[in-house]
This record gives sequence, structure tokens and C-alpha cells, in this order.
Amino acid sequence: MTATSQRYWDADAREILRVNEGFVLTSVDPEATPGYSGDKEQSAEDLAAGAQELSELQERLYAQSRVDATDASVLLVLQAMDSAGKGGIIRHVVGSVDPQGIALTSFKKPTPEELAQDFLWRVEKRVPEPGFIGVFDRSHYEDVLIGRVRELAPPEEIERRYGAINDFEKRLTDAGTRIIKVMLNISYEEQRARLMERLERPDKHWKYNPGDVDERAMWPHYMSAYQTAFERTSTEYAPWHVVPANRKWYARLAVQALLLETIEVIDPQWPPANFDIAEEKERLAAT
Amino acid sequence: MTATSQRYWDADAREILRVNEGFVLTSVDPEATPGYSGDKEQSAEDLAAGAQELSELQERLYAQSRVDATDASVLLVLQAMDSAGKGGIIRHVVGSVDPQGIALTSFKKPTPEELAQDFLWRVEKRVPEPGFIGVFDRSHYEDVLIGRVRELAPPEEIERRYGAINDFEKRLTDAGTRIIKVMLNISYEEQRARLMERLERPDKHWKYNPGDVDERAMWPHYMSAYQTAFERTSTEYAPWHVVPANRKWYARLAVQALLLETIEVIDPQWPPANFDIAEEKERLAAT
Repeated sequence: MTATSQRYWDADAREILRVNEGFVLTSVDPEATPGYSGDKEQSAEDLAAGAQELSELQERLYAQSRVDATDASVLLVLQAMDSAGKGGIIRHVVGSVDPQGIALTSFKKPTPEELAQDFLWRVEKRVPEPGFIGVFDRSHYEDVLIGRVRELAPPEEIERRYGAINDFEKRLTDAGTRIIKVMLNISYEEQRARLMERLERPDKHWKYNPGDVDERAMWPHYMSAYQTAFERTSTEYAPWHVVPANRKWYARLAVQALLLETIEVIDPQWPPANFDIAEEKERLAAT
Repeated sequence: MTATSQRYWDADAREILRVNEGFVLTSVDPEATPGYSGDKEQSAEDLAAGAQELSELQERLYAQSRVDATDASVLLVLQAMDSAGKGGIIRHVVGSVDPQGIALTSFKKPTPEELAQDFLWRVEKRVPEPGFIGVFDRSHYEDVLIGRVRELAPPEEIERRYGAINDFEKRLTDAGTRIIKVMLNISYEEQRARLMERLERPDKHWKYNPGDVDERAMWPHYMSAYQTAFERTSTEYAPWHVVPANRKWYARLAVQALLLETIEVIDPQWPPANFDIAEEKERLAAT
């Protein structure tokens, strides 16, 4: 199923961006725009049309949940290297939906309280309720990404986590949550250019952290940790999608398409009245 | 200070909508559009211009908080009778801001766990952090509104709450939170028309609840409870604003103006770099 509102989107984003057996991260071109035959200019129109559709689909899903007519929810997991565009996705794609239907969590460095618990403890608490689109800006995957690269836990604990993540995601899926896992894939060169822009522009300085360059020095290690995470946790019920992200406009369209296709499959309908309409009209008219 | 981006807005919304000594709720005209000289058509343009400005002001405020350069936050408290338009305010005014800077809480009927605690317990947990615009869709005021009308607590406990609310809001304000308290004021007739529309339209049935008519029967009691809440809790540091809301477009503009004026007073600036820019450029270029 393709996102019907995006005119120049001509493939099933969930298929073509999906991490399947044999996937090799380093062979993906971050400049590419797979599935989209339009250009940057057309993308703005398509994004706006998609926003309209996403907004309506989300409202229907939310409506169903309000009358206990569905247990469906969506969870968008966003992972990426610094400056890859997570913030832009949240602002321009997620931001087009009614905030009342969004449950956004930005996972930061764990607090001492969080560190004293299992790594999934803080994540469990942020799972979206029925009717909501949950968004994780970073996620439990940090615990097998920076956790692995920076050796923040013993190797056997890191190993254990892949299985724990799969169990967790299976349970969520069984309970009605559609999980969309996205890695925004920028190139090493593109990251340099974007970090440099943050250094050039006074209105971007606050986004820059000297630690970003230290993390950048570990780039190949991160790519390897992502590759391992994909191999161990791209499951049938919660597959990974790698979205080429050097072109911001493409990445936004692609993530919007993933959301649209997912909710189109749920196919939420306006729930029927669970009261007697004629009787209520009478009662109301009498007031 | 007027919201500079709204061309047809010609007053300080915080002044003209404010609940001052001697205020009488039932003498306010819910059809009125005080402070705005444009019409519905112009309002769309003004709302869009205001959204742009609000978005930028919010990002600056957020940026400052990220480098610990401010303890300022904003808390918008929305109270109203059913169908008065809280949802529309959240969708069309709050929804124009980057979701990363919004902390929205919809307060429902308290859970047994919440009821076992002081009424402010669940509210304290949802106070916005520095840099955020917190939004309360219903709030601690329910505990002196429906709480009073439906006698959900003993009279002396209801009485105690006004003072507790003032203490709480004073503490918040002292910690850097600007509190904007808004009551959306629709007329009894307008509510009937809106509830009837929910009964007429299949895509609105989910928003209707037979209990709405029961609450409507208590209308004068609610107006009286609002009047008392205004008298007891419209303070210098956290005044109430009553926004005429029969015209949805006006209410949205007015709440946007309240937000704009509040953040304009904070006057957030892009924070300066807290690192050596030249040195970082060199480090980055070397990668």
C-alpha cells in the first residue's frame, strides 16, 4: 500500500526502506530518494497533502480509542547520528498532527534513578496508549548503540538487551501497537557540513556541543553498532527502516509515508454512537 | 504590549481580557470580539502570522533553556464548559508550535490513586520545565468547579483549595513559570447548538456523551463556581482571563495573543556559544 495522498510517491515505503536479511548499512546511499519521483519543490506540496491525510487518519484512530473501539496505537522510534534531522521530522511531520493525539518522549542520558533500573524501565512508562501516535526521540536502542560504542555496560549485558528488546516489542505489538523503527541515515560528510553550519550561525550555536565531535570520531563504531542492532532486532513484527537523510525533504516525506501506510492498514473509522441519537436530541432540545 | 504580528489586534489581550476586582462573569458577552478590529476572514491571516512568531519565540525560549540560560517557562491553563473549544485551541494555536517545546496534559477524572492524594499531587508532576510551554487541558481548577458543583469533597475542603491553589501558583511563578489562565466563555445557547451538531454529524458522535446534558443542567451552578474561582484565585501573579468564545476564530486569536504577549515580555534571545567557536571549527574541520 502506498500513501495515497503523496502524488509523487510511487512505492510502499515500508517495503523499500525495510531492513531485510542481508542488509548492509554502509552500502546504502544517504543521497538517494528511493520511491519518490518528485523533486524538492514538489515535495512541499506532497508533504502538505500527506499532513492533511495523516491528521484525519489520526483523528479517527483517536476517536475510536475514546469509545474503547480499538486498542491500536502507533509508535515511531527515531534513531540517528547527531544532526541527521530527528528534530526536523518531529517539527514538520509529527507537528502536522493534532498535539492531543501525540505522545512524544525525548530520551536523554539516563538519570541515576533510571540507571538503577533495567534499561527498559523508563521506556515502558512511555509506551503510547490506544489511539495515540507515540514518538520516541532516541529510545531503548541507545542502550545498544552508545551503550555498545562507549562500553556503558558489560558486553554480556549488551548482548542480553537485543533479546530483551525483541521480547518487549513483541509484547507491545501483540497489545495493538504498530512499531515503526526509523534510522535517519546521513553521510559522514553531510554531518560535518551540518555541524559546521551550527558553528557558523548564531541562532544554531545552542544546538552544538563540543562532545558532538568526540562522538563523530567514533563514526565507524556507531555504524557497526547500528548494523548489529539491525541484524538482531529487525523482526517481522517490528522491522527497521533506514531512511536516506542527506536530503531533509526526502526524509520527511519518507517518514510521513511510513506513518500514513501504517495507519491506512489500521483503517480507522468514525465509531458509531454508543447512545440513542434521537433520544439525546430530544433531551438536549429540551434544555 | 500587543502581539505585534497580529495586524488587526489593537489592544493588550492580557489587560482587556483580565479578570479584575468587580468582574462579573454573567455580564460578559460571549459573542464579542474585544481588541480585534478584523473579521473572520482576516483572522486566518493574523493567526498564521502569529503562529510564525510564536514558533520562533518558543524556539528561542527553548534554546535558552538548553544551555541553562533561563528558568522561564509558560503554563497555559484552559478551562471551559463542554464544547467551548479547548480542543480547537490546542489543535490550532498550540499545534502551530514545535511539539518538542510543548508539554500538554489532559486532566481526566482522577484515578483512585490520584484521589488518594492531595488534589495538587497529579498537577505538580505536570508543571512545565524551563523552556517549555506547558498546556493544561482542564486542571487543578476542576477541583473547585465540578468539585464544588457536584460536591465531590466536603465544603471545608473545597474552601481550603482556593488558598492552596494560590500558594501553588505563587511558588510556580517565583520559580520562573508565567501562568496564563484562560476560561473560554460560550453562551448556554451556543453550547446547545454545538452539542446538537455533535449529534447531527457521524464524525462527531464520539465527542458526545449523554453526561454532557446532565452537566449542562447545572449551568448556573457552574457559572457561579467559575465566578467564585475568579474572585478567589485571580491574583496579580496568576490572573484569570475570560475569552469570549462563541466565535471560535476570535478565541483562537485571543489565546494566541495571550501567549505571544507573555513570551514577548520574557524576550528570549539566542544564547551565545558556551564554547570556543574558532577552536571547534578547527576540530571539526580536522575530521
